[in-house]
Amino acid sequence: MCHLLTMADLTNADINEILLEAQMFKDGSTWSSPKKMYAANLFFEPSTRTKCSFEMAERKLGLEVIPFETSTSSLQKGETLYDTVKTLESIGVNLAVIRHNQDHYYKELVPKINIPIINGGDGCGQHPTQSLLDLFTIKQEFGGFSGLNITIIGDISHSRVARSNMEALTKLGANVVFSGPPEWFDHTFSLGNYVPINQAIEQADVVMLLRIQHERHQGQSTYTAKQYHEQYGLTVERESRMKNGSIIMHPAPINRNVEIADELVESKKSRIFKQMANGVYIRMAVIKRALENSVRGCLHELHY
Amino acid sequence: MCHLLTMADLTNADINEILLEAQMFKDGSTWSSPKKMYAANLFFEPSTRTKCSFEMAERKLGLEVIPFETSTSSLQKGETLYDTVKTLESIGVNLAVIRHNQDHYYKELVPKINIPIINGGDGCGQHPTQSLLDLFTIKQEFGGFSGLNITIIGDISHSRVARSNMEALTKLGANVVFSGPPEWFDHTFSLGNYVPINQAIEQADVVMLLRIQHERHQGQSTYTAKQYHEQYGLTVERESRMKNGSIIMHPAPINRNVEIADELVESKKSRIFKQMANGVYIRMAVIKRALENSVRGCLHELHY
Amino acid sequence: MCHLLTMADLTNADINEILLEAQMFKDGSTWSSPKKMYAANLFFEPSTRTKCSFEMAERKLGLEVIPFETSTSSLQKGETLYDTVKTLESIGVNLAVIRHNQDHYYKELVPKINIPIINGGDGCGQHPTQSLLDLFTIKQEFGGFSGLNITIIGDISHSRVARSNMEALTKLGANVVFSGPPEWFDHTFSLGNYVPINQAIEQADVVMLLRIQHERHQGQSTYTAKQYHEQYGLTVERESRMKNGSIIMHPAPINRNVEIADELVESKKSRIFKQMANGVYIRMAVIKRALENSVRGCLHELHY
Repeated sequence: MCHLLTMADLTNADINEILLEAQMFKDGSTWSSPKKMYAANLFFEPSTRTKCSFEMAERKLGLEVIPFETSTSSLQKGETLYDTVKTLESIGVNLAVIRHNQDHYYKELVPKINIPIINGGDGCGQHPTQSLLDLFTIKQEFGGFSGLNITIIGDISHSRVARSNMEALTKLGANVVFSGPPEWFDHTFSLGNYVPINQAIEQADVVMLLRIQHERHQGQSTYTAKQYHEQYGLTVERESRMKNGSIIMHPAPINRNVEIADELVESKKSRIFKQMANGVYIRMAVIKRALENSVRGCLHELHY
Repeated sequence: MCHLLTMADLTNADINEILLEAQMFKDGSTWSSPKKMYAANLFFEPSTRTKCSFEMAERKLGLEVIPFETSTSSLQKGETLYDTVKTLESIGVNLAVIRHNQDHYYKELVPKINIPIINGGDGCGQHPTQSLLDLFTIKQEFGGFSGLNITIIGDISHSRVARSNMEALTKLGANVVFSGPPEWFDHTFSLGNYVPINQAIEQADVVMLLRIQHERHQGQSTYTAKQYHEQYGLTVERESRMKNGSIIMHPAPINRNVEIADELVESKKSRIFKQMANGVYIRMAVIKRALENSVRGCLHELHY
Repeated sequence: MCHLLTMADLTNADINEILLEAQMFKDGSTWSSPKKMYAANLFFEPSTRTKCSFEMAERKLGLEVIPFETSTSSLQKGETLYDTVKTLESIGVNLAVIRHNQDHYYKELVPKINIPIINGGDGCGQHPTQSLLDLFTIKQEFGGFSGLNITIIGDISHSRVARSNMEALTKLGANVVFSGPPEWFDHTFSLGNYVPINQAIEQADVVMLLRIQHERHQGQSTYTAKQYHEQYGLTVERESRMKNGSIIMHPAPINRNVEIADELVESKKSRIFKQMANGVYIRMAVIKRALENSVRGCLHELHY
């Protein structure tokens, strides 16, 4: 398949193949396309990690990156997302990475765009390369997923990470539970169970913290930073009760002393910055796969 | 000549040479400068197509592109356009592409700037590479220009495309007529005639639609989108009365269902996305020519 | 040393080595790192010259530049500067150039960031590569610094250039005096003396003008442009009384007809655009040095 839009696009075999490829890139393997290729990164929401990580991955694969800033594009003159992406395709861009605040923004693109689209995050939907880098980080630590206890804590309902990861980890044999403010728990998630915070942390092999997405709460939050930290954050005290060999993850950006105590961000159990390093290798693997699969175009794959 | 500022800078022989060169690039020909060269794209108005197209052309020619964002430049501290361009020349930039909202912005630059300036659009003035890519698209279709009927429809007075194309096409032997709201017709255009919309469409080999430039009307428009579409837009009904072998063009961005019915944008007669693809080859030809002509500097050419 | 944060980091021997290296780059010498390396330029204040100059230097050294725009980064979601830089380090960036409006922003970074940080300007603190390019320009003109009379004129208290240059030039044997509005004179500068404007200009080998930093005065200025020019600007009349062989410098952006008469900007004595050209070679030398010194990481150097 050309595109990578949601984790549901990937079978367990696909996932394992991508993780294997990422490991090879991490170990120094290289790849470049037989001809010069061009990528564009369309980020309609702020990003440091994901955007720079894709840029790095593209350059490590030898792609040229055509700069695109939403604030100075013709979107300012009312151009649609479809016309924008079709324009980039027309001028010779071979791959588009898109982050957009609208859920499933890609549905209108896929039927008529003939270059791979990599979803860099859609609204409160999915963020598949974040999921894959989380899986990669877990696999490096534990060798696999079967039987692992994963606790996802925080702003579940606004998180594209929670949704993507829950689906993928469950499919791969892990036990996923959620914790955090009950009013932020998404009851439409059929899998996963809600567990009180202290129990969730004590039983976890992986404590996966989510960022509080202030920008999606629109002032409705009833917690101060201090209250949240005490009730649902990874405090120093809670961390001391984590299992031996367990790890801490966070997709970042971090609200220090809210989701996690400042002094734990780079502590021994933390894999937070390692996740970022892993992201580059995952994106290299995902882009390589997309470009290889797009040789005959992407339109013959329609199934959305 | 180093610079490309208006279509009037080019003789018919120049134009034909550029179209020929563009065709060679389209057919796979390559070129790169004998030494590493650097371009900068200064866009003081929003753009997707033109900016990305120049970026693509520059990279296909092996140039390095030095990023320049007007919003984070020293223009914010009151620096003049001249000092900004002179700065880029001083640090080693070899070519500047500029779009600016002021008509003839280049007049203060040309006497003292020693690197080629490619006009990417000046106010309501000209947009020569858009004209050239339009000519290229027409030539691909009809083999030449002599005797062709070209209808330019829409926001004539605010359009740099109308002005550039009228001049060039007339010089090359085509018959250019205008249509659209009479109050948007520019009576300073000495060439070309105004023709009612239905007649203009029926007689045309090329129906060239212009974008309504909302950003230049400043709220004075007296048409709703629906009214405009019915009175002056390319409706499905009007398209059905176009001649056999005739084509539809639009410089984009498109206001769908205003200048053109949504379902016609990618219809059989439309060359809209082909124009975008052609733009890259035209810009490659224009840049190659500018760099070759600038070997001895650009200041010996003063005639403005 | 990995980082370049202030001129005080450099001994006279260091400075001379950098100037020598810059001269070699100016004379056509090239260098590239043994492996592919990546730079990021984080500019939290507007810049044309410094940002484009670093970009040019990086590309001339064969580095890939990962674009970073503060306005679309996760700083918008509240991420700290430290977490932002640590993220870039994690994804594989090898060098960070930073301009920030906070004095000594780098103090929180240096203890934990393991890649070289080049200070592109901190608040009203320092701007070491500007100082070095000023020194380079002076050395090209006079062969050395010993006994030269340097007059720095203008907005002394808000200028990172004044501070950096005063320290470096004095250390190298030049006599530095200041002039300009007495209320903008920084009495915390232990070296240098205040001299009335006409005398300061007449005795100078180098007249170094500073930009009036409107953005840091916050509406407290008591001079109109005309008043400032007459009282403290380099007027045509004052220029006529400069010594034979003396030169005019300005870090730019220039307020024309305020700090300097319009017609003097590119006059025979002016080295203003030459300074910009020199900036690229200085930054190449500084970056080469930083990358070479960072081979074993930057954390073993802690002394802040």
